[in-house]
Amino acid sequence: MRLRLDVSPYAVPASTFPFPPANPAYAERVRASFARQGAMRLIGAELIAVEPGYCAIALVPHADVSQQHGYVHAGIVSAIVDSAGGYAGFSLFPANASVLTVEFKVNLLAPATGERLVAEGFVVKPGRTLAITRGEVHAERHGKRTLVALMQQTLMVMHGKADE
Amino acid sequence: MRLRLDVSPYAVPASTFPFPPANPAYAERVRASFARQGAMRLIGAELIAVEPGYCAIALVPHADVSQQHGYVHAGIVSAIVDSAGGYAGFSLFPANASVLTVEFKVNLLAPATGERLVAEGFVVKPGRTLAITRGEVHAERHGKRTLVALMQQTLMVMHGKADE
Amino acid sequence: MRLRLDVSPYAVPASTFPFPPANPAYAERVRASFARQGAMRLIGAELIAVEPGYCAIALVPHADVSQQHGYVHAGIVSAIVDSAGGYAGFSLFPANASVLTVEFKVNLLAPATGERLVAEGFVVKPGRTLAITRGEVHAERHGKRTLVALMQQTLMVMHGKADE
Amino acid sequence: MRLRLDVSPYAVPASTFPFPPANPAYAERVRASFARQGAMRLIGAELIAVEPGYCAIALVPHADVSQQHGYVHAGIVSAIVDSAGGYAGFSLFPANASVLTVEFKVNLLAPATGERLVAEGFVVKPGRTLAITRGEVHAERHGKRTLVALMQQTLMVMHGKADE
Repeated sequence: MRLRLDVSPYAVPASTFPFPPANPAYAERVRASFARQGAMRLIGAELIAVEPGYCAIALVPHADVSQQHGYVHAGIVSAIVDSAGGYAGFSLFPANASVLTVEFKVNLLAPATGERLVAEGFVVKPGRTLAITRGEVHAERHGKRTLVALMQQTLMVMHGKADE
Repeated sequence: MRLRLDVSPYAVPASTFPFPPANPAYAERVRASFARQGAMRLIGAELIAVEPGYCAIALVPHADVSQQHGYVHAGIVSAIVDSAGGYAGFSLFPANASVLTVEFKVNLLAPATGERLVAEGFVVKPGRTLAITRGEVHAERHGKRTLVALMQQTLMVMHGKADE
Repeated sequence: MRLRLDVSPYAVPASTFPFPPANPAYAERVRASFARQGAMRLIGAELIAVEPGYCAIALVPHADVSQQHGYVHAGIVSAIVDSAGGYAGFSLFPANASVLTVEFKVNLLAPATGERLVAEGFVVKPGRTLAITRGEVHAERHGKRTLVALMQQTLMVMHGKADE
Repeated sequence: MRLRLDVSPYAVPASTFPFPPANPAYAERVRASFARQGAMRLIGAELIAVEPGYCAIALVPHADVSQQHGYVHAGIVSAIVDSAGGYAGFSLFPANASVLTVEFKVNLLAPATGERLVAEGFVVKPGRTLAITRGEVHAERHGKRTLVALMQQTLMVMHGKADE
């Protein structure tokens, strides 16, 4: 396996994803959990895709999520890509487990602005105790996508801890 | 120099900070810049201390900044410690420079809950082009402080780019 | 652009790489610089591929680069992927610039063992002052590749500082 | 608790360290494990201090650990601070557990050169499954210490896996 740069939409055939979900109801679980995140609602983030080991979250830039120069705040960019990575991992977890971010690292590559930001999380390595993901945030503008953030993340599988 | 664990309040004598500010109006500049961050206002964050190479930002946990288990969202914790680190760096910058987060890495150590979260940023190494900071977030509860997050961050000094 | 998991060899057609080199002699420069790295020689690392924005370094595991369980030491794995990322960036730099690692973050995903380790660095975003790369280390064994490490790195372009 | 910058030697009173070791023979275990790391022997690293939740490793710069400009290679600096952090964590583990680096992030702050490099690891948060450490590398020269690297690391406690 190798990570390669590629053009892609947000709807990806499920066959693309190499990791089988442990729970057939993975998409419903992710959506229900996302709906309980007050922070995602507050900033206006929307869950736009869930696949096994993959999640995409969109955010339309607005003044209430800005930093001092008017771009979307690095912390808000980080929040959506942290959630995207977390739910990418969670989609593969068994039914009785919830997810915790152990740590993540994010590089900010370009000003976060445009018509829409899309944060995507991808599982790189699922595991019994830990799952490793990577993430990307693209800004969409005039039909073009610009990479604005790159993330690498470690998640913990919290066995025996229901999500709700 | 060495980083040591220590008990401390948020008001620290200025002599503690080894880095002289390039701009005597550093505190006013940080406050004015923070006031322009829509994202900090939206989540309810408050700037509570600025010193040369140091900044503290507080947040009272509430449902609108929560993740699915009711704790403060890792992304929101990251947002306040990113801002604290960024303004710690910015406090040392010359008057005609603004600040950009190049990247940061954060470990989440304990559930972010309690009466108040306080994120602190500390400059470790100021530089002409880059500044390196570290950060901590503590949860305050019943007079006790618990370390909930630890950060390490790289900032860029944007010379010739006014902050407003 | 999007980072995707893919099967790949180490010889990749140059057309795959989206970033044009600023210096036509990029491959010779990378090879000459690598040859001056005493550390790479000491551990037995070999430069096996250079393309614009890409570099691959191989290491045959042996007892002298081991940790306490006999696998290749995480620090040695980090050293080859740091060099691979650094030279991926350097391959795009102008002739009068050298390269410096500002920071990197690496996740160790599986025991570093097998017939050969191959560390690859990929430029994600070249820039005038900073370049961002990501890296992977695979272990080869019985014709199979296992991802053993994932890296994200920030490099600095040192203008006016010749490499030798 | 708060991390503070401070001047310090490498011999620190044990009372400084807030975490009790689970195994009274912690120092012998760390030394025996370090002695099995072929990589540390190859590069010439020496274990100079072990305390509960703390470890220091020294390296005298020489041409065989250099990068292309003659300084100690970033990957070698990372290797000693990864080991220092790992053994800081391991010193607190129970007798039947070994240690694994999950991930680390390191900032390189100044050229790694001088009479001696000293890498120190400090446990920030011990845990049943994971331990979080931070690390520093200083260069010693003419009686002065310069901070050359700053690290943040996640370790895994491998229960039931003896170290040798």
